[in-house]
Amino acid sequence: MKNESRVIGRRVSRIDATEKVTGSFKYPSDLTMPGLLHAVVLRSPHGHAEIEEIESSAAESLEGVIKVFTAKDVSQELFGEIVKDTPIFAREKVRYYGEPVACVLADSEDVARNAIKKIKVKYKTLPEVFDPSEAMKEEAPLIHDNYPGNIAVEKKAERGDVEKAFAECAVIEKDTFTLPYVHQVPLEPNGCIAFVDERGQLNLYTPNQSPAWLRSRLAELFNLDLFQVRVIQIQGGGGFGGKCPLTIEQICVALALDIKRPVRLVNNREEDFYATWGRVPMKIELELGADKSGKLLAKRSRVIADNGAYSNIAPGVLSTALTRIDSLYRLKNVENIGWLVYTNKIPTGMFRGFGNPQITFTVETLIDRLAARLNIDPGEMRKRNAPCAGDVSVHGWNLKSCGLTECIAICMEESNWNWKGPGKMEKGKKVYRGQGLACCIHVAGNRGVYPSFDGSAAEVRIGPDGGVKVLSGEGEIGCGANTTFAQIAAEILGVEMERIQVPEVDSCYSPFGLGAYASRVTAIGGNAVKNAAENALEQLKEEAACLMGLNKEEIIYEEGRFKSGDKTLTFEEVCREGCYSKGGTTIVGKGTYIPQDVTIADKETLYGNISPSYSFGAQLVDLEIDVETGKVKILDFLAVQDLGRVLNPLGAEGQLEGGVIMGIGYALSEELVLGEKGEVINPRYRDYKIPLAIDSPQVRVKFVETNDPVGPFGAKSVGEPALVPTAPAIANAIFNAVGIKVNSLPITPEKMKMELQKKIRELEEKE
Amino acid sequence: MKNESRVIGRRVSRIDATEKVTGSFKYPSDLTMPGLLHAVVLRSPHGHAEIEEIESSAAESLEGVIKVFTAKDVSQELFGEIVKDTPIFAREKVRYYGEPVACVLADSEDVARNAIKKIKVKYKTLPEVFDPSEAMKEEAPLIHDNYPGNIAVEKKAERGDVEKAFAECAVIEKDTFTLPYVHQVPLEPNGCIAFVDERGQLNLYTPNQSPAWLRSRLAELFNLDLFQVRVIQIQGGGGFGGKCPLTIEQICVALALDIKRPVRLVNNREEDFYATWGRVPMKIELELGADKSGKLLAKRSRVIADNGAYSNIAPGVLSTALTRIDSLYRLKNVENIGWLVYTNKIPTGMFRGFGNPQITFTVETLIDRLAARLNIDPGEMRKRNAPCAGDVSVHGWNLKSCGLTECIAICMEESNWNWKGPGKMEKGKKVYRGQGLACCIHVAGNRGVYPSFDGSAAEVRIGPDGGVKVLSGEGEIGCGANTTFAQIAAEILGVEMERIQVPEVDSCYSPFGLGAYASRVTAIGGNAVKNAAENALEQLKEEAACLMGLNKEEIIYEEGRFKSGDKTLTFEEVCREGCYSKGGTTIVGKGTYIPQDVTIADKETLYGNISPSYSFGAQLVDLEIDVETGKVKILDFLAVQDLGRVLNPLGAEGQLEGGVIMGIGYALSEELVLGEKGEVINPRYRDYKIPLAIDSPQVRVKFVETNDPVGPFGAKSVGEPALVPTAPAIANAIFNAVGIKVNSLPITPEKMKMELQKKIRELEEKE
Repeated sequence: MKNESRVIGRRVSRIDATEKVTGSFKYPSDLTMPGLLHAVVLRSPHGHAEIEEIESSAAESLEGVIKVFTAKDVSQELFGEIVKDTPIFAREKVRYYGEPVACVLADSEDVARNAIKKIKVKYKTLPEVFDPSEAMKEEAPLIHDNYPGNIAVEKKAERGDVEKAFAECAVIEKDTFTLPYVHQVPLEPNGCIAFVDERGQLNLYTPNQSPAWLRSRLAELFNLDLFQVRVIQIQGGGGFGGKCPLTIEQICVALALDIKRPVRLVNNREEDFYATWGRVPMKIELELGADKSGKLLAKRSRVIADNGAYSNIAPGVLSTALTRIDSLYRLKNVENIGWLVYTNKIPTGMFRGFGNPQITFTVETLIDRLAARLNIDPGEMRKRNAPCAGDVSVHGWNLKSCGLTECIAICMEESNWNWKGPGKMEKGKKVYRGQGLACCIHVAGNRGVYPSFDGSAAEVRIGPDGGVKVLSGEGEIGCGANTTFAQIAAEILGVEMERIQVPEVDSCYSPFGLGAYASRVTAIGGNAVKNAAENALEQLKEEAACLMGLNKEEIIYEEGRFKSGDKTLTFEEVCREGCYSKGGTTIVGKGTYIPQDVTIADKETLYGNISPSYSFGAQLVDLEIDVETGKVKILDFLAVQDLGRVLNPLGAEGQLEGGVIMGIGYALSEELVLGEKGEVINPRYRDYKIPLAIDSPQVRVKFVETNDPVGPFGAKSVGEPALVPTAPAIANAIFNAVGIKVNSLPITPEKMKMELQKKIRELEEKE
Repeated sequence: MKNESRVIGRRVSRIDATEKVTGSFKYPSDLTMPGLLHAVVLRSPHGHAEIEEIESSAAESLEGVIKVFTAKDVSQELFGEIVKDTPIFAREKVRYYGEPVACVLADSEDVARNAIKKIKVKYKTLPEVFDPSEAMKEEAPLIHDNYPGNIAVEKKAERGDVEKAFAECAVIEKDTFTLPYVHQVPLEPNGCIAFVDERGQLNLYTPNQSPAWLRSRLAELFNLDLFQVRVIQIQGGGGFGGKCPLTIEQICVALALDIKRPVRLVNNREEDFYATWGRVPMKIELELGADKSGKLLAKRSRVIADNGAYSNIAPGVLSTALTRIDSLYRLKNVENIGWLVYTNKIPTGMFRGFGNPQITFTVETLIDRLAARLNIDPGEMRKRNAPCAGDVSVHGWNLKSCGLTECIAICMEESNWNWKGPGKMEKGKKVYRGQGLACCIHVAGNRGVYPSFDGSAAEVRIGPDGGVKVLSGEGEIGCGANTTFAQIAAEILGVEMERIQVPEVDSCYSPFGLGAYASRVTAIGGNAVKNAAENALEQLKEEAACLMGLNKEEIIYEEGRFKSGDKTLTFEEVCREGCYSKGGTTIVGKGTYIPQDVTIADKETLYGNISPSYSFGAQLVDLEIDVETGKVKILDFLAVQDLGRVLNPLGAEGQLEGGVIMGIGYALSEELVLGEKGEVINPRYRDYKIPLAIDSPQVRVKFVETNDPVGPFGAKSVGEPALVPTAPAIANAIFNAVGIKVNSLPITPEKMKMELQKKIRELEEKE
């Protein structure tokens, strides 16, 4: 393509940058409307208890209180993405601390907050269980009557002959890892506004990551005609998976349907920890073996995943943890079994990486231990196992492009890589330095069950003004999707970025789209936009030909001009006259993209090529450990990503920088700490420690461009993978610095100091 | 068409009825947004004066005042639909009482209203001229330097040989008529909100009747890229032509562009009389002749039209007054000359009927005088002159359908018509009764100059929800267009009305449309919607065929089901599965309608077939005159309209009832009374007398269905013509009751009493 690099590949500012930087951008919590009522949820103060009585008359008699809602006032359907087990409000019993029990609707949020204190709920406490391994035992209290052993889901993914392969291994490492409950803690807590208009249509303004999906779920839950539900996405202050399935919208909508006035429900920071569901904690027993050349021969994993009290999207997360990393290397023999277990804790769900950070942490740290035993450079060992374009992985993934080897090589070249085996502590040494490397693979989309496709549709609309509107159902959750879409349309149409607008997703106008999850938006939605823009350009060529009295084939389009011989029409002229000559009609370029060789993973075996492309990454960290404080200080961080093609370096760098910082938080400081009833002990930024700017290193970012054959302009994914290898790279650097094997996250200074002291004691004992 | 009468022709409630009846509908003046600033305009206190100095520092120092704007702060371009002569704010001089001189922008409307009082403007008054005939004289003060004789426009429309025809007449009547300045006085004054977003896009929320047209004008006036202007139409509380061209939007936009915050400008009732421009007052000298059989042979008119101080759309109104009625009858010889004259009065513009009520009043009253002299029943005389379908009129109008004769006949049959010549007064008789009849012709569209078409485009969008969205650029100004569009789509698609939604016009999504004027929306926009719905249905049939594995030709669609043999798919199934099988794409049915034999009227001769169809009407009034009070009381009113086909009797009846009441106001009570400087003496409902419910008769409505060959389902127009024959019918009834010739409107009780007393004096003198 002649002008391919006109916009694509350039450092383009976000189209919403000015609004966001100046503070004029309207986030969901800024939204208001006349007659708005405010909802505040009363949440359970017990982890497991029967509800004997709810007395709300004192609350209802407060001035400004409109109504108190409990389970009896709302739809009796249960919801849940894969397992339908969740009521809108708790019915006979509560199953976690923080579960919605009632909700006050009032003139103001203050009144509502005051009123929930006046609701008296009589509970009879029940025995609780918080640890998934305990919950699986026969004597454990049953959380849902119909799920014996508290097992929501059991899954397996087995290929090859693991027994035989392990027998052939020169070295085998096995360990048990504990991955904590972490939360997305987006800058803006979740919130939405719902109202029913006079024609009976439900309208919902929400930052939800998948507005079309949400819309279907709401129609189903409330037994509405789908066309009577209008969902408008407002870009929220961060999603990261927490704003994807139903978490609070069902409450807001239930109230709005009942009261027929606009209802606003916005979590405060503490509520957001209970109401927006974080990463699935896992206990993973992992066994990994290699031959003496470092070739990985066998993998066995046992995953116990904590569902919390209700099933959200965690069954899908478990599947990912059981399979995803197996395609990172040329593994042939794997045996993965996992259980998703109910506990009396806050439900868990979707969070950037979707099970991949958990399993990648385990495999990538065991590889370094195997490398140490084989005395092979762990970078070299990974290169030896890396797949190539054309490979079909153990689970059937068709790797059409793969830059893993180059990613690893760049990490090693650009970082004074100097691996000399696991570190050893020395007497009196106060500061240790280490380097660690880790890799990842991730999808760019994931074929759904219903609707059973993972495609996308787009419209590129051009009116007489020569303005270009790009309609996609995928939505913008803050990652820059709309800027990417605008770039793609500008590139194809040969016009300036200023001419392109990407309106918010509105089910009234936007095509159906699966939304922002599985790092799918650029690769899949972008292809649809590209096709739509190409289709629009063909129509413009037809218009130009018609205006010039020629055939379409005689028209050449270059740099905003339609030419034939010495005849020329500008883009603007063709848009304007083409429209007016057709009664005012809008050019509607339609584009559809459906990946061709992608299938739903088999339900029993989890086998199948689930994504049109797969991206790869390697990250290398250089760090320092202070023996006195146990503090880990990142000195240098290099993130190298094979994302196929960099459509916008500015955006892609931002994704990687943000992902790495989030990964550093996962590695070193973040954990949702629950008290003895399952209450969140640290529900504030003060105590829930995400990295601050001062904690964050400069992240160096490099790209490997493999020009994927199916992605738009060769692009694959970058959103989630940015985070995946970060924690194991840090663990490997610690292993490299002081020889400590990290089996649980986060590696807080306290934990680190304990481990260091243990090592020092061992050293002293040896002397 | 099998199901043609499923929705079309039924009494369908407006789709926005509930909102409007319950008061929840949001009108433009209900609209607010965060950070909104309020604009109040300072208007000239002189009819003609030089501005020597504007001192605004006292106003600007008031707390809450953001800025005071004058001419120097805004675009220096002039605007105007046909003649560009209007500045945003007066520059060197003011030309009418009420002309915008400055504008205060403040935190609240109260502060702004207070602040305008603090602005000191030093004026040097100039000689004024208010009467157009005076203004044409050589010695008259010149209002615009470049328009000698104060003539904005002079036009002619001459056909045939008028001299010869008059020579052949058996009777000739000639008189001079004075038609007053009346205002639309919509229930809601004009108002809008504008803001510039962070990407530099101007956004305007407005009840404007032609949002696409307005958008182009604003881009031109402010030198903006058209795609950088987004106009969203909010249905206002009545338009009637007053909200069509630029009247206040340019001020709101000028401020918003400068201040970069949302600006609200909403007229109060008094301001609306100055800022929204009413019907063009005319002085018409009319001469009309007929042979002894009553056949009209010749017409000569001289029209002096009052432009007010600036040209808006009045040049077009003058053209209409010179030509429109000539096609109502089989006239062959006409000579019409008109002048549009500047005066120091409020500009005049577009108002329901657009010049037609003025000229129709004169011709329809002279016909009754001719009939009286010929002793022919005026109903009969009209029938003898009525055209038939297939006629081409004197100005080239192609009458494809014509129900005028039937309209007249129904009036006469349904009203105990008993015409016995003009009434004579009798001594001592206190109450007189009379009947009057009048007719009209009107267009259904009017081909524009640029864009030089009078077509329409629509989209019918169907998503997986089976909901149908109808996008049209024509807009809804309160006449029920959206309900009509929904009916048309429901009819074609064979689905229930509840499934259809017609979103507001939003230039981001809607096709370009000329908007709600010239009674064009149903006939022209409706055809586009019909075509779009048919196109969508074809696509659905293709989807159904694809899902069934058949060819499209094998599919039959009936009552919401796609059938082939014993295979059946419901509408919902085809929408859903068709969408999902195509990556989520929306069905976009596109429809365009461009009338085939319609041309722009010739600039010199005004000749040309300007509209795809023409509707006809006749109205008959039975009234009583009280000699003591001069009061005219309507006893019975029958309005019969040939609107081609009645798509929604409920809506069409409403249009006719409303039009007749408005016509009664024009006939009997309404007039904008100007003081000696041109100030409005009666700027309130209390003094500006529109008919109240108590003044309004029950209007009986009948329809003649001529099933026009080009209108959608045979429909033509109904909005404007409803008003046109009302005033002459009343004047003719007065002539019939007491023999008084009404030459000026309104026929107030005072004027009537004076005329009656004159007649009584004549009677007494005769004795």
